[in-house]
Amino acid sequence: MKLKYRTDYLITHVRGVECSGVRVKGGGLGLVRCSGTVAGVFTRNKFRAAPVILTQKHISDGHIEGIIVNSGNANAYTGEKGMENAKKMAEMYAEKLGCEEKDIAVSSTGVIGVQLDMKWIESLFNEVYPKIGDGDENAWNFAKAITTTDAFTKQWGVKVGDAVIAGVAKGAGMIAPNMATMLCYVFTDAEVNAEDLNEILRYAVNRTFNSITVDGDTSTNDTVLLVSTGRKKLETEKLKKAVLRVCSVLAEMIVADGEGATKLIRVFVSGARNDEEAYRAARAVASSTLVKTAVFGGDPNWGRIVAALGYSGAEAGEITLEICGKEWRAEDSFALSCVGEGADKMMAGMGRERNGTTRRVRILDRGRETGNREKAREAMKGEVVEIHIDLGVGEGKASFAGCDLSYDYVRLNSEYTT
Amino acid sequence: MKLKYRTDYLITHVRGVECSGVRVKGGGLGLVRCSGTVAGVFTRNKFRAAPVILTQKHISDGHIEGIIVNSGNANAYTGEKGMENAKKMAEMYAEKLGCEEKDIAVSSTGVIGVQLDMKWIESLFNEVYPKIGDGDENAWNFAKAITTTDAFTKQWGVKVGDAVIAGVAKGAGMIAPNMATMLCYVFTDAEVNAEDLNEILRYAVNRTFNSITVDGDTSTNDTVLLVSTGRKKLETEKLKKAVLRVCSVLAEMIVADGEGATKLIRVFVSGARNDEEAYRAARAVASSTLVKTAVFGGDPNWGRIVAALGYSGAEAGEITLEICGKEWRAEDSFALSCVGEGADKMMAGMGRERNGTTRRVRILDRGRETGNREKAREAMKGEVVEIHIDLGVGEGKASFAGCDLSYDYVRLNSEYTT
Repeated sequence: MKLKYRTDYLITHVRGVECSGVRVKGGGLGLVRCSGTVAGVFTRNKFRAAPVILTQKHISDGHIEGIIVNSGNANAYTGEKGMENAKKMAEMYAEKLGCEEKDIAVSSTGVIGVQLDMKWIESLFNEVYPKIGDGDENAWNFAKAITTTDAFTKQWGVKVGDAVIAGVAKGAGMIAPNMATMLCYVFTDAEVNAEDLNEILRYAVNRTFNSITVDGDTSTNDTVLLVSTGRKKLETEKLKKAVLRVCSVLAEMIVADGEGATKLIRVFVSGARNDEEAYRAARAVASSTLVKTAVFGGDPNWGRIVAALGYSGAEAGEITLEICGKEWRAEDSFALSCVGEGADKMMAGMGRERNGTTRRVRILDRGRETGNREKAREAMKGEVVEIHIDLGVGEGKASFAGCDLSYDYVRLNSEYTT
Repeated sequence: MKLKYRTDYLITHVRGVECSGVRVKGGGLGLVRCSGTVAGVFTRNKFRAAPVILTQKHISDGHIEGIIVNSGNANAYTGEKGMENAKKMAEMYAEKLGCEEKDIAVSSTGVIGVQLDMKWIESLFNEVYPKIGDGDENAWNFAKAITTTDAFTKQWGVKVGDAVIAGVAKGAGMIAPNMATMLCYVFTDAEVNAEDLNEILRYAVNRTFNSITVDGDTSTNDTVLLVSTGRKKLETEKLKKAVLRVCSVLAEMIVADGEGATKLIRVFVSGARNDEEAYRAARAVASSTLVKTAVFGGDPNWGRIVAALGYSGAEAGEITLEICGKEWRAEDSFALSCVGEGADKMMAGMGRERNGTTRRVRILDRGRETGNREKAREAMKGEVVEIHIDLGVGEGKASFAGCDLSYDYVRLNSEYTT
């Protein structure tokens, strides 16, 4: 599912951020120069790739000078040699920037279990480094360089007051085969201390990247970095909302690019006993392969949704269930991460028309089937299918985004041979 | 995946068990007469179907006279009316058997959220009841009556000393659409008290039905009953092993009948810190949609297995990984449930030929790739693909069975419209 979008702000619009990149057959290399404060969130997979382990250490002092990323090879499950190579990448870039190795973040994405070809890395590096700059083209080249099987590059940015908050991401599920997933870099020129930066990133990641699923598989290389170059003034609360907004859009872009995905699924749960149970319920529905295939087939198969809610562990009373179909708009991505954050209007409008797209169709009304199955089938034709669930037992709210499961998912993941 | 099998013992070979059944378009009805002691295990789904709630209550005194099962309608998410209908089914059968309603177990399987047509149930009941008997044909008719989208009927039995232990099951994933899953009835004429019967059932279910996955979705109607008619003498330990054996085979039959499945996957994990972590690791590998699609494609994609182990939460050191392909034999099913139970020979033979089928191919040797990818590809052509994993950190062992994920899974679950 290739999302069409236009973003007004790119990472090079952030003061103090320069970059470049090149994408060739089999992979690519991207470089960012960004002297500033940094926070990071990394995969919890036990087999964290060498660059992830290294970068976690490097950013622990909260300062960064540059980022070097290669695609095509994840440098994961590669032992000591892999760690040596990750260090060499940091060294290579630090030398040019005239900084310490520990000020360089390193990322890799691609095949697991194969050693990096360092000659290839060096030759790409020598090609990319001289081209670093702050033009729009630089941002696009970096975005392209870090992709693997992505169907489109993923960039989003906003301006709040004088400050720009812009990010770039890659990822499309755990990806064929052994492609290690999701990388995201968000930059801002808003001034912020290391502690707040950390809190903002965690806040945003929990509500966005931790609330999406393609196939439930977590990769060895997932990395999200948030960098502030500290050139502009902005209230921390406003920065927080802006980072959340940027991460929301990038997260939905990743889900939409889920392998073989034809529809984006947003699940909104309200009326749960608490937010934690709402989260579990939303995740269970968005992750159910039976729900995913039903959405692919355009079938408003509420029995599967109820079954998923039933095994989620969330308490439930008489369920109200609505389906809404719409075209994708970046702005709507924000809705997902707003649940439980005072954006009650998102949930309150049950049964009413919204955003000029399709009508919300109520399928279950406090546990009773409404007989609207045909209307619901119509709603499921949208490229975004929203499932709104009221569990009817409390005030807990949460949301989760996923994608459908299609023939192409199976094709991409079974036919690809190494 | 339609398994070919021959079983020497059917449920009607158990002294004191009689049955019959009929399967018509849209569903069926089966009846068992079996005066004896009973134990049961039921779905943990919050939306347990009416017959599940009722049967749980009915068997709580440990005594049973008969079982009535309909297929085609799950009588789930049907409210008070649904409970009334489940009670009517018990009443109907109790009257004929001259027993109390509370001595009847009721099961339903099929579409969720639709009320039972009680006239249809009554007419099938009147047809089936007079045919109850203890012939082989009776067992087959019951087995057929309880199926929904099953590709084949599932029966298995053994004889130990004078006693027969035989079971019948239905199930094939959560099934298209809203079909509620797995029913299993195991009977024995071995004498055993209610407490031991309970313990034996829990022991067997944990090692079999709780160690299989088709798509991770748990249904509203899952039920396993174990009934003893108490006519023969048998040591409890021997009975326990026999019940385990019967459940093992039936569980693998259900997995093999997973929607669109073309291969059965057995995952054996050893060398974990403890059995619990081994179980988590085995489950993660067998449940990973990326591993499942790789097996469908016959690709020995070990990076995906390592990634799944990495997010399973199990501690791991240097991993040894082997693949083995074979034809399905009922006897091999037992291997799965034996792990951690002294059947170390199953795990000990790493690298050696076993059972005269295909050679085990080592892909990773203590964390290093062996370069056997092509041989492994050959091994993956078997209808059963065994994945043997040594985590290298302890003595914990466990196993899990699953099936591959094919185009047909998507077709069955998306194209079926209600």
